[in-house]
Amino acid sequence: MPRVVGVAVLGSGGIARAHATALRRHAEAFPEAPAVGRLVAIAGRDAARAEAAARRLGAERWTADWRALLDDSEVEVVINAGSNDIHAEPSIAALRAGRAVLCEKPLARTAAEAAPMVRAAEEAREAAMTGFNYRFVPAVLLARRLVLDGALGRVYHFRARYSDDSLLDPDAPHGWRHERGLAGSGVVGDLASHVIDLAHFLVGPITAVTAAVRTYTRTRPAPGGHRPVTVEDAVVATLEFEGGALGTLDASGMCPGRKNFLSFELNGERGTVAFNLERLNELQVYHGDGRARGLADVLVTERDHPFGGRWWPPGHILGWEHTFVHQWEEFVRRTAGAGGEMVGATFADGLASARVCDALLAAAEEGRRVAVPAP
Amino acid sequence: MPRVVGVAVLGSGGIARAHATALRRHAEAFPEAPAVGRLVAIAGRDAARAEAAARRLGAERWTADWRALLDDSEVEVVINAGSNDIHAEPSIAALRAGRAVLCEKPLARTAAEAAPMVRAAEEAREAAMTGFNYRFVPAVLLARRLVLDGALGRVYHFRARYSDDSLLDPDAPHGWRHERGLAGSGVVGDLASHVIDLAHFLVGPITAVTAAVRTYTRTRPAPGGHRPVTVEDAVVATLEFEGGALGTLDASGMCPGRKNFLSFELNGERGTVAFNLERLNELQVYHGDGRARGLADVLVTERDHPFGGRWWPPGHILGWEHTFVHQWEEFVRRTAGAGGEMVGATFADGLASARVCDALLAAAEEGRRVAVPAP
Amino acid sequence: MPRVVGVAVLGSGGIARAHATALRRHAEAFPEAPAVGRLVAIAGRDAARAEAAARRLGAERWTADWRALLDDSEVEVVINAGSNDIHAEPSIAALRAGRAVLCEKPLARTAAEAAPMVRAAEEAREAAMTGFNYRFVPAVLLARRLVLDGALGRVYHFRARYSDDSLLDPDAPHGWRHERGLAGSGVVGDLASHVIDLAHFLVGPITAVTAAVRTYTRTRPAPGGHRPVTVEDAVVATLEFEGGALGTLDASGMCPGRKNFLSFELNGERGTVAFNLERLNELQVYHGDGRARGLADVLVTERDHPFGGRWWPPGHILGWEHTFVHQWEEFVRRTAGAGGEMVGATFADGLASARVCDALLAAAEEGRRVAVPAP
Amino acid sequence: MPRVVGVAVLGSGGIARAHATALRRHAEAFPEAPAVGRLVAIAGRDAARAEAAARRLGAERWTADWRALLDDSEVEVVINAGSNDIHAEPSIAALRAGRAVLCEKPLARTAAEAAPMVRAAEEAREAAMTGFNYRFVPAVLLARRLVLDGALGRVYHFRARYSDDSLLDPDAPHGWRHERGLAGSGVVGDLASHVIDLAHFLVGPITAVTAAVRTYTRTRPAPGGHRPVTVEDAVVATLEFEGGALGTLDASGMCPGRKNFLSFELNGERGTVAFNLERLNELQVYHGDGRARGLADVLVTERDHPFGGRWWPPGHILGWEHTFVHQWEEFVRRTAGAGGEMVGATFADGLASARVCDALLAAAEEGRRVAVPAP
Repeated sequence: MPRVVGVAVLGSGGIARAHATALRRHAEAFPEAPAVGRLVAIAGRDAARAEAAARRLGAERWTADWRALLDDSEVEVVINAGSNDIHAEPSIAALRAGRAVLCEKPLARTAAEAAPMVRAAEEAREAAMTGFNYRFVPAVLLARRLVLDGALGRVYHFRARYSDDSLLDPDAPHGWRHERGLAGSGVVGDLASHVIDLAHFLVGPITAVTAAVRTYTRTRPAPGGHRPVTVEDAVVATLEFEGGALGTLDASGMCPGRKNFLSFELNGERGTVAFNLERLNELQVYHGDGRARGLADVLVTERDHPFGGRWWPPGHILGWEHTFVHQWEEFVRRTAGAGGEMVGATFADGLASARVCDALLAAAEEGRRVAVPAP
Repeated sequence: MPRVVGVAVLGSGGIARAHATALRRHAEAFPEAPAVGRLVAIAGRDAARAEAAARRLGAERWTADWRALLDDSEVEVVINAGSNDIHAEPSIAALRAGRAVLCEKPLARTAAEAAPMVRAAEEAREAAMTGFNYRFVPAVLLARRLVLDGALGRVYHFRARYSDDSLLDPDAPHGWRHERGLAGSGVVGDLASHVIDLAHFLVGPITAVTAAVRTYTRTRPAPGGHRPVTVEDAVVATLEFEGGALGTLDASGMCPGRKNFLSFELNGERGTVAFNLERLNELQVYHGDGRARGLADVLVTERDHPFGGRWWPPGHILGWEHTFVHQWEEFVRRTAGAGGEMVGATFADGLASARVCDALLAAAEEGRRVAVPAP
Repeated sequence: MPRVVGVAVLGSGGIARAHATALRRHAEAFPEAPAVGRLVAIAGRDAARAEAAARRLGAERWTADWRALLDDSEVEVVINAGSNDIHAEPSIAALRAGRAVLCEKPLARTAAEAAPMVRAAEEAREAAMTGFNYRFVPAVLLARRLVLDGALGRVYHFRARYSDDSLLDPDAPHGWRHERGLAGSGVVGDLASHVIDLAHFLVGPITAVTAAVRTYTRTRPAPGGHRPVTVEDAVVATLEFEGGALGTLDASGMCPGRKNFLSFELNGERGTVAFNLERLNELQVYHGDGRARGLADVLVTERDHPFGGRWWPPGHILGWEHTFVHQWEEFVRRTAGAGGEMVGATFADGLASARVCDALLAAAEEGRRVAVPAP
Repeated sequence: MPRVVGVAVLGSGGIARAHATALRRHAEAFPEAPAVGRLVAIAGRDAARAEAAARRLGAERWTADWRALLDDSEVEVVINAGSNDIHAEPSIAALRAGRAVLCEKPLARTAAEAAPMVRAAEEAREAAMTGFNYRFVPAVLLARRLVLDGALGRVYHFRARYSDDSLLDPDAPHGWRHERGLAGSGVVGDLASHVIDLAHFLVGPITAVTAAVRTYTRTRPAPGGHRPVTVEDAVVATLEFEGGALGTLDASGMCPGRKNFLSFELNGERGTVAFNLERLNELQVYHGDGRARGLADVLVTERDHPFGGRWWPPGHILGWEHTFVHQWEEFVRRTAGAGGEMVGATFADGLASARVCDALLAAAEEGRRVAVPAP
């Protein structure tokens, strides 16, 4: 029987729900896990919303003060699913209070804010993970294995985009995501940070960038009138990697017909892989032998695929939410000191992504190539 | 607070697990539901396997005798996820004992076996549903709405296939699915029945068929030697519909590279829709206006789509298992006498599919066009 | 220097133009050919149209009487691109007059009409080819090589369709294609005959069929009022092959959004290939090794592909018209008694396709499985 | 009857052949053209190759000295299909000698070299076109019409790539394209220049860029030993447009599985279009009305499409070579002073592309954002 660890979630929105769902799905689907999570408490800025979330998600307690979570001896794990401005302080406090922390991405609003989080994690020796859940897409994991196994040879290119239509409507209301003070950045932290993490995961460190950004919608409606948007709604960039690879990146919320279109293509001397989050069960892989050379569309649901055989028979596809379950599966192994392959993003990985985010904004601001500081 | 109904599942395999998962996911995701299910008991032929399933799926009780379920006053609903040969008797007994029944497809091994199930359902006035879960794929529901709204006009064609590779390996062991006595048929009942139900759901009654079948692997290994395969591994057919439409159908487990490839295309006088279960979040829909005419790839995850807004933001795809949740959502409304749109397959629909299955086998056997008996 | 052979084309429409273009393109692109064609004369029912076509296509002479072509000593080859009712007589006469004949598909309106054409070809010992140009699509040729090389193993299934929207408009005028007396059949001879030929080319003889047909538009406007449509606008069928494979076929002009959608998929014990004429430069081929199993999209334009290196660099795609050039290239080798691989459809192949067309119509009419007579 | 203009081609390689083919195909397919071309002479550096090309392509005369063409009174048009280093001088000389000039892309090795070509064209008042043939892909023309008609609204993004595998083999021999002195640049001039021209054609002027380049293969085999590669084999860039749009661009010959993969996606406030040269008959266009929103795959072969009805029936696809025919069709109208829509790239357009190419190389060299000089 797995040990049951008490979990508190900071946040009461959709991402909090994704994590809460993951705890339960994990407990069902991974009966051999060393530990499983049980949602104990919800913390939110607003007590009423926290209560509603707690009732809906099955938490016993709720609070409008996240510090109360750290007084709760049942809470062994804090999942930080709050807005970007409350990633650093509660995460550090929780680590210092002996809790394992799974913190949503971006780890912090800037690298400067993320750095002490990494130090706290190192000092605490508790499990600390950044919620780059797309590492846990089976097709992404398969891509990584192919790269690590040398199937692609030396990597030449990584081109990626994260496009959606979430910012197209100029009458959509102002929120914390539109405010640099709270969010740190716009699509850079929200979308590009994912892409950067996958670049690091699949290719290696990004060493330099150039970039340009735009804010197409300068103000958005708010109670009492329009408020300025102080973050970018689009970024384009070039990427240089430690190993010599070149890349492009763009992230934007201004793309009609694109909904959750995180796609990448990686070219190496012997092969190519391509992926698109809107078809997250598939990976395109180049086969170069014989006369029938081309990119094969691999449905990554078979027994010898990552997480294959865990869910349903081959061809029975998984959804977005399963990435949270897979992420939690590894996190819970970390908290339990159990073994097995570990691929999730550490806080150091979260900092590495933040450094590139900072570099993108600086490069755009200053109109020059910006080197990314080494860890 | 929704009422909690006690549920027993007959069966302990993967489909039983899909139903058990659906109960829990439903309770989380549909807090406003009139009722939610709680898994109370598992019945299986083999006591040890039933116990293991009960422990894994969280049922309190297990039994090797399904009749015991009907003595259990906590059991209000029976989900029949057993093999085809135990669909009829337990379902009829459960209905007569005042239980609602959700029975897996095919409803029975033959129409003759299914007919009394329909009568039992009519007499019992309990909710009775056939588990044609693919009706509950949001893209399929969108296709249906487009047809019902007249967006396609008169329907001319429905062509569909259900292809996988599950029967390719001649060394895969013999099982109940390979035996006509237990299964009723091979891919006809297992795969084609789904296609036929979707044909009925989207186009209307099939009135006549022609067909051919093949059994490529004549024997399969079993303890003590090979046993004969007495069902077909492939079927091809023509379909004629009441409204004048023509169709083709093929189902086979002999298709390398196809995993769960249930695809259909429907052509009407003003439009076309096309679907493929391996990309179940997508529907292709013809746009015929202006110069940019063509089939649009619609990611069926938006707020104005079936079940849109229920799960995650647009573009965040669902998995195969969500179809079971949606199916259960309607079933539980039926059991609660609640309103709302009802699209699930009744027992009569299950019988209708069985009649076409029978007609396919007869047509293949007799080498002639076989009329499908009207209900 | 290649020998120049004089060519007469019977017909003055679009297909006549495709052949005339092919002669010239061939002469440019195959400088090492043993012979090249030169368009000498056009014959058409209507003298004025024949003259216009001759002027446009660069023929020196024209005639309203095809018999005149056989008195023309410069005419060594007759390309019969007339309507179906004038395939047999002129082709036979030309062969008897010592001319090589390339006759458009379907070879004749019925097998009974096609049989004496085959005999004439045998007796004449002149080159005689049926214009099943889709054999000459490089991707189709690659598919065939894969099958012949055993890459797919034993073939289980061939499913194919030929869908377009050419018959959707009920106000489109009546023409010879709508009249059984002139055309022989509707989509059966026009579209399905192509599919059947590819089935024979890729899989082998079809031995039995079942079918259903529909005529959705019963009359069409003609000068002086509406005239009845006496041919089918849609056919669906099952196919049984000599080697045990099963297939489906459908052909229809009632498919919005489909323009020239001849697609097929062939499943064998070790692999799958799939093709679609709207993307005629591509072949999907299953790769079954390693973890990255799936259908690869092969762009069939490389040097080791059929006709690779003949036209443009890899990735520079060919158009529909190139199939006519490839076909003519083989035909001209036949007329010159030159060697090389021969894959084009003979008159016997044209008869084989006609026998299946007849069987489809008989099966639909009689509501039964119809065996296809062996050659 | 169209007037016949004498044409000389400078160059004897594959692109020279593409132009020669285009002359003939144009004469056949555009009988109403005010003029058609007749290939009169070929000039090449090497007399023997020029002679062979002339014989193959049907030119009456050949020369190893391009100046001789300008003494030939039959030559009214010069098509400059030579290597990049002989674009400027012969084109200027031909214009000054009263000949119309169609010069291959890139117009010159640098903007400095291209600028006097533009002045020569202005002074000469002869037709002068840069061979950006991809403007003449029907799907690209349709994309442009949609943009010009306002179907997409304000343009936010243009992302494009041109990927092939032409540089992957390190043992492929050294040639003029690998030498900066002769070629001016590597993939920047060879591939990116096309993308830049399409960006200008579809979106408008590029005003600033950032970039990075790589040369992965530093030397290549040549007679007598290896020679250094002095141009880049990959470039990545960000693009800023006059109207505020942001873009990315990458061009590389190091992409396994990509053959002629020039693809772009353009996002505007109301729509999206996407294109890929490997499927050049298709354009993806976003439909945003109703519930069936998504990108439609438009087969751009219909009568109301650019060049629709000119070639074959809808659905019968065109090949790469047709872009040259369409380009020539406009060029010949220009030479004849005829009217009609003119969309081809002028020499000024060629200079504009060269300015961006220069800016890319400078930006990569200097590690900064480089403004593109206004015309």
